Amino acid sequence: MAKNVGIIAMDIYFPPTFVQQEALEAHDGVSKGKYTIGLGQDCLAFCTEVEDVISMSLTVVTSLLEKYKIDPKQIGRLEVGSETVIDKSKSIKTFLMQIFEKCGNTDIEGVDSTNACYGGTAALFNCVNWVESSSWDGRYGIVVCTDSAVYAEGPARPTGGAAAIAMLIGPDAPIAFESKFRGSHMSHAYDFYKPNLASEYPVVDGKLSQTCYLMALDTCYKYFCHKYEKLESKQFSLSDADYFVFHSPYNKLVQKSFARLVFNDFVRNASSVDDIAKEKLAPFSTLTGDESYQSRDLEKASQQVSKPLYDAKVQPTTLIPKQVGNMYTASLYAAFASLLHNKNSELAGKRVILFSYGSGLTATMFSLRLHEGQHPFSLSNIATVMNVAGKLKARHEFAPEKFVETMHLMEHRYGAKDFVTSKDSSLLSPGTYYLTEVDSKYRRFYAKKDGNCTGNENGSVVNGH
Amino acid sequence: MAKNVGIIAMDIYFPPTFVQQEALEAHDGVSKGKYTIGLGQDCLAFCTEVEDVISMSLTVVTSLLEKYKIDPKQIGRLEVGSETVIDKSKSIKTFLMQIFEKCGNTDIEGVDSTNACYGGTAALFNCVNWVESSSWDGRYGIVVCTDSAVYAEGPARPTGGAAAIAMLIGPDAPIAFESKFRGSHMSHAYDFYKPNLASEYPVVDGKLSQTCYLMALDTCYKYFCHKYEKLESKQFSLSDADYFVFHSPYNKLVQKSFARLVFNDFVRNASSVDDIAKEKLAPFSTLTGDESYQSRDLEKASQQVSKPLYDAKVQPTTLIPKQVGNMYTASLYAAFASLLHNKNSELAGKRVILFSYGSGLTATMFSLRLHEGQHPFSLSNIATVMNVAGKLKARHEFAPEKFVETMHLMEHRYGAKDFVTSKDSSLLSPGTYYLTEVDSKYRRFYAKKDGNCTGNENGSVVNGH
Repeated sequence: MAKNVGIIAMDIYFPPTFVQQEALEAHDGVSKGKYTIGLGQDCLAFCTEVEDVISMSLTVVTSLLEKYKIDPKQIGRLEVGSETVIDKSKSIKTFLMQIFEKCGNTDIEGVDSTNACYGGTAALFNCVNWVESSSWDGRYGIVVCTDSAVYAEGPARPTGGAAAIAMLIGPDAPIAFESKFRGSHMSHAYDFYKPNLASEYPVVDGKLSQTCYLMALDTCYKYFCHKYEKLESKQFSLSDADYFVFHSPYNKLVQKSFARLVFNDFVRNASSVDDIAKEKLAPFSTLTGDESYQSRDLEKASQQVSKPLYDAKVQPTTLIPKQVGNMYTASLYAAFASLLHNKNSELAGKRVILFSYGSGLTATMFSLRLHEGQHPFSLSNIATVMNVAGKLKARHEFAPEKFVETMHLMEHRYGAKDFVTSKDSSLLSPGTYYLTEVDSKYRRFYAKKDGNCTGNENGSVVNGH
Repeated sequence: MAKNVGIIAMDIYFPPTFVQQEALEAHDGVSKGKYTIGLGQDCLAFCTEVEDVISMSLTVVTSLLEKYKIDPKQIGRLEVGSETVIDKSKSIKTFLMQIFEKCGNTDIEGVDSTNACYGGTAALFNCVNWVESSSWDGRYGIVVCTDSAVYAEGPARPTGGAAAIAMLIGPDAPIAFESKFRGSHMSHAYDFYKPNLASEYPVVDGKLSQTCYLMALDTCYKYFCHKYEKLESKQFSLSDADYFVFHSPYNKLVQKSFARLVFNDFVRNASSVDDIAKEKLAPFSTLTGDESYQSRDLEKASQQVSKPLYDAKVQPTTLIPKQVGNMYTASLYAAFASLLHNKNSELAGKRVILFSYGSGLTATMFSLRLHEGQHPFSLSNIATVMNVAGKLKARHEFAPEKFVETMHLMEHRYGAKDFVTSKDSSLLSPGTYYLTEVDSKYRRFYAKKDGNCTGNENGSVVNGH
């Protein structure tokens, strides 16, 4: 069986168009700090009418192959996690096949995985399992997470965002899975869902979703610790991992989540909790589970107690989610990308625990072990290729009015046919794919900023008709 | 690594309500034989207003667990293939978690896989890979294929159908994967897709879809033979497998597909084609690929030549698809279930080749090796449990007018909220789940025919609120 299977390369793309949360607060007439401190968010990236989840994934997969010099024929599996539905039957993966077909490679397994923000994690697990299975043919896999998170006007709107991430999967990875350490919690819930098929916007019960998230976190941590302890014959505590990466709908929930894990360690009497912390958390030791999710005092005390550990083990993972917003399936991996960006030179040998959550609900806590790796598949080169600081710096700020106007246009365009876009790629970087047209049969056409069209030189039909 | 991983048990469910294709021909005013001979179909099963892909999958998973006496705690993975979207974010898998939550098992990996009729195959491959991977925890997996195929009035409507299939996955299986023999072809096409999000009906280019299907078949067979020949150091021909199972949108396409494989063997000069057949196919040996897909004469000649082999290697797989119609993701596995039903006592040691196709497009040809197995996981017991003949016999025929009326109601209900159904379960067998209500927040409620409600004794809220 292949060893140390995991992520051997990564790239990230997010739209170059964003709005400041501070400007959005003023525009929405809410109290100052509601989005920046209350949610913990700095900026929100969004797709304009020329970008969508398909264009973003075409961009990031092309970039991954080019920057790591991977021959498209070396790919044996390609799968996508997304909850942004453009077509209810045709997978996003089939759009990406355009990149590989022109190189003569159509023997590529995998489709799209779906459950809210968890689909990317499901795809990642599937791809890693493929490499470890008897059906592996020695080639690389690619996992793509791509989403555009948009909300109806109202309190959820500032929790939007958009991005696509591509991960190359194979053996001897610098980012290797510790697959035996894993705990999942899956359950039937209506915290966030998309039953209104004609609308891009979800139905959200924000308060319920936060409770579901924290309950899933507790249960996953319980299973995770149980499996660790069974295999390693010693107690697991937060001290046994160097970094914790969370699915990040907004930063405040990440702060609460880590505090919740500290409270878990306190209840479990684990070594990570010192005497001062124990004293501060003692008044809450008799709360029932339900009470503990509702207690503001516990939330406050545990966040205060966990602050030093949060700064060391979580804060380095928060950059991109705070700057880009919720990226649904890409959100967890954008947080992980932030860690590679901030700490790449110090990560060899470190253990990183990730918590993936998708409403509805599906959640898993899992463990990665990092190694420096060999160029081009080294942690430092991955950080260089992703160029997070450069991409953030090259963005274009939109005024809130312009953002709202774009949302209106996108509402109108969602599920529509027979229109052409502005084809305005002036704000996009070279190499970026963009939407040019949706024809009368709903067929979608994309072009690439450098002038080449996907799969067809003359920029017209690209779908085999 | 676990050995002989594959399908260790199966069950199938299809709605007890159906219409005769012959009656539909008369009702639609088309020429006699257009659906029965032209499409090769006998009957079409459909969901009435009390059934949907969620209720069917609740029914079949519950039945699988009960009939093979599997403790729900023994399940470590559960995944669904479907292209019937009821919610764009919340997976069908999370609805099925209701069955497991009440037994205290929420640590179950897997979500939904999507690409047209191929999602079930993707889920099956993922589940088999999981058992072979280092993340396997020793428990069983379950793969569910569930779909309701409905079309707008017109020529595609008679190609509808509905069913759900559940497969138990584990090592030492009576239906084991030969994972090294596999060929996939994936490509960007618009042959059948669902871009009109508010409608349940697809956009279909029937002629293009048939050509895409046959081209994918050719390419998969080419890759399959190539891999077989590389590993076994001898040529593969149709003689090397005992049965061929095809994704079956309608039986006529299955006949054409097998004839196409015979033509492939002729072109490859493989041993399966005798001298008489060679003579009959010789006039077509100079056709280009494109010409060969369009040639009616080739179609006729190759179907004639392949008839004896078809009767032996394919006909036993056609019962359920002809009687139920297209079941999308469940279609291929319903064809395989037909084989188990018809030939279970003669299947030990046999090799079965399956061809899975999903528009858009994704396709794979793969190989299974059958063993008698040990009770309850034996081929004969699987056939007994599935009880195909009994289920077909217990159905209720609807007049075409009643079928059309049901389709109208379902159109109206698709994506709707705030309604109660008739709750009429009189036509359903005991143990069948059915839809009772969709509330003002789009939350769906189901009951079970024997009087027990999913996850809640009093038949009301089942979603944790």
